[in-house]
Amino acid sequence: MTNKFSYDGLFTEKSEDLPMSVVEHAKYDFAVAYPAPETLPMDGLVRALQVAVDARGDEIARQMAYYPHVKGSPELREFTSYKLDNDRGFNVSPDDIVLTNGSGEAIQLIIHAITEPGDTVITEQYVYGGTFNQLKKAQADIVGTPVDDQGIIPNLLEELIIRLIKENRNPKYLYSIPEHQNPMGPTLPLERKKQILEILNKYSMPVIEDECYVDLRFEGQVQPPFRALDDSGIVIYIGSYSKLLAPGLRLGYFVAPEDLTRRAMSFRHGSGPNLFGAYAIEGFLSNNLDAHRGKFNPLLKQKKDAMVMSLEENFSGTGATWSNPEGGCYLWLTLPEGSDICSIRDDIFNEGVGYLGGTNFAPNNDGQNCARLCFAFESPQKNKEGIELFSHLLKKRSIIKN
Amino acid sequence: MTNKFSYDGLFTEKSEDLPMSVVEHAKYDFAVAYPAPETLPMDGLVRALQVAVDARGDEIARQMAYYPHVKGSPELREFTSYKLDNDRGFNVSPDDIVLTNGSGEAIQLIIHAITEPGDTVITEQYVYGGTFNQLKKAQADIVGTPVDDQGIIPNLLEELIIRLIKENRNPKYLYSIPEHQNPMGPTLPLERKKQILEILNKYSMPVIEDECYVDLRFEGQVQPPFRALDDSGIVIYIGSYSKLLAPGLRLGYFVAPEDLTRRAMSFRHGSGPNLFGAYAIEGFLSNNLDAHRGKFNPLLKQKKDAMVMSLEENFSGTGATWSNPEGGCYLWLTLPEGSDICSIRDDIFNEGVGYLGGTNFAPNNDGQNCARLCFAFESPQKNKEGIELFSHLLKKRSIIKN
Repeated sequence: MTNKFSYDGLFTEKSEDLPMSVVEHAKYDFAVAYPAPETLPMDGLVRALQVAVDARGDEIARQMAYYPHVKGSPELREFTSYKLDNDRGFNVSPDDIVLTNGSGEAIQLIIHAITEPGDTVITEQYVYGGTFNQLKKAQADIVGTPVDDQGIIPNLLEELIIRLIKENRNPKYLYSIPEHQNPMGPTLPLERKKQILEILNKYSMPVIEDECYVDLRFEGQVQPPFRALDDSGIVIYIGSYSKLLAPGLRLGYFVAPEDLTRRAMSFRHGSGPNLFGAYAIEGFLSNNLDAHRGKFNPLLKQKKDAMVMSLEENFSGTGATWSNPEGGCYLWLTLPEGSDICSIRDDIFNEGVGYLGGTNFAPNNDGQNCARLCFAFESPQKNKEGIELFSHLLKKRSIIKN
Repeated sequence: MTNKFSYDGLFTEKSEDLPMSVVEHAKYDFAVAYPAPETLPMDGLVRALQVAVDARGDEIARQMAYYPHVKGSPELREFTSYKLDNDRGFNVSPDDIVLTNGSGEAIQLIIHAITEPGDTVITEQYVYGGTFNQLKKAQADIVGTPVDDQGIIPNLLEELIIRLIKENRNPKYLYSIPEHQNPMGPTLPLERKKQILEILNKYSMPVIEDECYVDLRFEGQVQPPFRALDDSGIVIYIGSYSKLLAPGLRLGYFVAPEDLTRRAMSFRHGSGPNLFGAYAIEGFLSNNLDAHRGKFNPLLKQKKDAMVMSLEENFSGTGATWSNPEGGCYLWLTLPEGSDICSIRDDIFNEGVGYLGGTNFAPNNDGQNCARLCFAFESPQKNKEGIELFSHLLKKRSIIKN
C-alpha cells in the first residue's frame, strides 16, 4: 500500500475541522430537540404514499424521474398555500413558496442572501442554536434583544436599535420565533407584533419570522403571524413539517418576496427537496392534519404539565424560575443570578440528566445560570422523575438550596 | 396596504439574481438529464418502505423522530458499504460513508472544503454542468484536459499539469466521471486509470471520482474505480442512487479520508438527508438490485441503439461524429469544426428538439459545434424520430449538408 495522502495545506480557510456530532442520550433526555416519537404517524405516512402511488403512479413516477422542481413538489406547495391561508391567515400562491430540506436550509439560504460579514443582526435574547450557528458562520454581529414571558419587549427593541445605530452598528434585520420560541418558550401577542412591525418599518429592517413550532400549540390562543399583518415584503416567513411529523422527513419552507427568493435560491446546490417525503406529507396531512394535531398536542401538554409540576415540587423556593409555554418542545429554566449550570453539564449528563446550557443560545454571552429543557421527548413519568433527579443533582452540588 | 418593502442594498455580494429555472420540454426532449421514468420502481420502493415499517415500525419512528444521523441513515450506509465492496471492489466501513442530498450536495461539500478562489482545477474537456457551476461559484480556475473515446488521455493530462505549473497555476485537484462520462459518454479503461493515478501521485493532486452513472452500464466491461486502485486517500469517491432509481429521491454519497470528511461536513447546514427515501432505497435494493438493473439497463440500451441508429441514418456523410457510450444517459454529438449549434438552441427547441449545447460544459470555452443528447428519457421510437427531425432542422439551416 502507498503512504497515506495528506490533505494538509489543501483545505480552504473557511472549512472547519469540527468533531462529528455523535448523538448520545442521557437516561432522562431533556437535551434533545425532538417531538414525541410515539406520535409519529409512520403508518399513516406510508399509507398516504401508497394511496398516491396507486391513484397516479405513472404521473408520480414521471415526476420522480425528473429532478424535483427547483421550489419543490407542486402538490405539497399547493397544500402549504392552503394551510397558510387556513391556519395562519395569509394568502400566497404555491409559486411564492419554496420547499427546503428542513427549515434549517431555509434559514441558511436567507441568511446567505442578506448577511455580509460584520452585519449586525438582532435575535431574541436567546436564540435557536441552528440559526445562531448559521449567523456565526456568516460572521454576523449578533445581538440579543430582551425577552419576557411574552417574548420580545417592543420598547426595549427600539432602544436597542437606537443604541446600535449610535454605535455605527446599524442592525440589518431581526430573526424571531414568535410562537413557542426556541429556547425560551414564549409566544408574542398580537399587540406586541403590531408594535414591532411599526418599529421595523420605521428603521427599514426586515424580519425573518420562523414559525417552525406553530402547529405544536396545546393551550392558549394562537396569534396571527407577522406575515398576516404586513404583506409589504418586510416579513420573510419560514415554516416546517419537521416538528409536526418527523424531523427525519427534512421538509420545511419559506415565503419571501420574489427578488429575495431568487437571491436565496442562488445558494442552493441543486433541485428541491426529496419528493418521496413530500408525497407522503401532502397525502397524509390533507386528510389528517386536524386529527393528527388533536392526538399529538394533548400528549405534548401532558408531558409539559408533568415537567412543570415536577419543577414546582422540586425547584420551588430555590430561587429558580421556569417558563410555562403554551406549545412547542422546550421550557427555559433560570437559576438565581450568579449560579452556573453550563460548566457542569457533562457531569450531570453522566449522572442521568441531559439538558442544554443557556450559553449555547446566547449572543450576548450570558445564560450561565439557564438551561433549555425539552419536555417533548420523554414520557410524562420520565419528565417527572428526571426533574426530581435533576434537582437532587443540583442540590448535591449546592447549586440550588434545599 | 403599505408600500412594497425594498431589499435593494440588503443583498450580499455573493448572492446572484438568477432567473428561476423553469423546466420546459421539447416534443423530443434530449436536453433532460433523467433516466427512463417508466422503469422507476415506485411500487417496489413504497412496498419496501411498508415492509420496513411493518417489521420494525417503532424503531423506525424513533429514528425518524430524531434528526437523521449527521452522515445519514445507518441502514443505507451499511448497504452502500456492501454494494461498494461487491460491485466496485473496495472495502470501506459504513462510518466512512456520508449520505448526501443527491451527489450534487457531495460535490458541493467537497469543493467547498478544498477550493479557494483562484485555485486551478482540472476536469475533463467537457464537464458535468452541476460541477461546472459549483466550481465557478468557488471562483476556481477551471481547465479541461483532452478526452478521446476512452476518456482522459494520460500523457496529455501530464503535459497540461506541467504547463499549468510553469504558468504558476499549480493544479490542485482533478474532477472526473470515469464511467459513462457526462456529457461525453466515454469510460476510462483500467490501464489509463493506473497511469493517471501515477501522475496524480507524482504531482500530489487528489481526484474527485464521480461514479454517478456506474450502475447504468448496458454493454462492455465495467472498469474498477480509481478508489479500488488506491486507498491512500488521494481518491475522493462520489456515488448516487438518483440515476439508478429516481432523482426525486435525492440520495447520493461520498467516501473521503476522515479529515477531509470533517472539513466537508462543516459546510452542511443541518443533519443528513431524508430517512424516508433512505429506508425505501435500502429496503428495495437489498432485495432487487440485480433484478432492477437487469430490467433498467436493457431498456436504456434499446434507447441508445435507437438514437445511434438514427444518427447513422440521418447524420452520416455530414462530417458529424457522435460517441457510442456503453452506459449512462448521454451521447455527445460533434459537428464539423466551425459550425455552431449552440446559438440556435432555442429555435430548434421551439421546432421540437431539445438538447444542450456544448458551451454549457466547456471550461475551455469551446464546444460551439457540440451538443449533449440524452437518450435515456424518450422512448426508442421518439429517439429515432427526434434525431430525424433534428437533422432536418439542421439541414434546413445549412448547418449540416444533405
